[in-house]
Amino acid sequence: MPTEHTDKRYEEELKKLREEILYMGGLVEDQIQKAVKSLVDRDSNLAEVIIERDHEVNRLDVDIDDVCIRLLALHQPAGRDLRFITTGLKITTDLERIGDMAVNICERALELNQEPQLKPYIDIPRMAQISQRMIRESLDAFVREDTDLALKVCKDDTEVDQLNAQIFRETLTFMIENVQTISRATKISSVSKYLERIADHATNIAEMVIFMVKGKSIRHMKELPPSI
Amino acid sequence: MPTEHTDKRYEEELKKLREEILYMGGLVEDQIQKAVKSLVDRDSNLAEVIIERDHEVNRLDVDIDDVCIRLLALHQPAGRDLRFITTGLKITTDLERIGDMAVNICERALELNQEPQLKPYIDIPRMAQISQRMIRESLDAFVREDTDLALKVCKDDTEVDQLNAQIFRETLTFMIENVQTISRATKISSVSKYLERIADHATNIAEMVIFMVKGKSIRHMKELPPSI
Repeated sequence: MPTEHTDKRYEEELKKLREEILYMGGLVEDQIQKAVKSLVDRDSNLAEVIIERDHEVNRLDVDIDDVCIRLLALHQPAGRDLRFITTGLKITTDLERIGDMAVNICERALELNQEPQLKPYIDIPRMAQISQRMIRESLDAFVREDTDLALKVCKDDTEVDQLNAQIFRETLTFMIENVQTISRATKISSVSKYLERIADHATNIAEMVIFMVKGKSIRHMKELPPSI
Repeated sequence: MPTEHTDKRYEEELKKLREEILYMGGLVEDQIQKAVKSLVDRDSNLAEVIIERDHEVNRLDVDIDDVCIRLLALHQPAGRDLRFITTGLKITTDLERIGDMAVNICERALELNQEPQLKPYIDIPRMAQISQRMIRESLDAFVREDTDLALKVCKDDTEVDQLNAQIFRETLTFMIENVQTISRATKISSVSKYLERIADHATNIAEMVIFMVKGKSIRHMKELPPSI
């Protein structure tokens, strides 16, 4: 039987896990915001800094996995805690991949910054804002086990998909009207696609939270339920 | 202390976990193969069947997660087994997302089958074959803890990326030469992109296997090591 001492340590480690996941979430949010800023402000130095800082995201991914595995090994949690920790293990993978998408945005920014600007960026910062909020809310939903908030995240994904489709059509129009724009238009379309995938990762996290709390999968539902 | 009886049951459940993951891998491989077949043969009925069969992939995802969580809860594994099970938890997420990509391919096939064929499909079946092999080998590497095979999978990803880039350029040429082809060319390009993402998921699995066995992350290395 666990002693009071180990119980306390266990609670502390669980708290640390929650905090580290939120910290990692905050970091990838910031990576996205600055990646898009490096594009909008044509700031290649910033893009380089953000690419470099991805190491920190990767380190957190490994660290948090270690915390989860240590918790499982030393404290043999059951029930709700066990679900929480195994969901945490999966969430870090999504966060790490979001970090990679931020790097991809920076790489396209570095390329785009070397050519004249094709168009002002309006929808892309908007997509970035929504995606960042989705990450934040999906992780808040995780630590608070708030399925209503998780469901909201899943619903918000539609808006990002629509913006992506809109940017895709717009860049295609550029390409058709002037073949000289193809290279740039394609890169802008890629940035939009990366943001759409970031929002997908946030949605994945939200779906996992709903599954963790309710034991019910809303993934692949044709229509999302009004409440959960 | 575990009795001989629980030990035996534990070994059986671990074996079942391995088998179920391999089975799920085989299923998503088949989903990809048939999804691409529905495109190449313009077989919309097959596309519908494959979309429908994605339920089975999703069910396996949930089932395997349950097996992992039960193993963690009842047998409190440590060390190597614990790493194996937590990696298994992550792998099913990748396999489930590969399943979603197969559905996306079918959806584009259904659309493309309603219009005259733009071009013969040569590179897409080739990409599908490589991606399927990468999935199979990444899972073989997982159950055998074979890091050499896992490293091979990571290296094979380059070929898929190159084919994707080639298809992208080719479809762009169609679009530029004739705006009438834009809709179809875009869909073909999407299929190629889905296959590229499938190969990325297989690469993710292979990277997790290397991390599981060696405790070393090869993700984000600029160049892959010749051996591990």
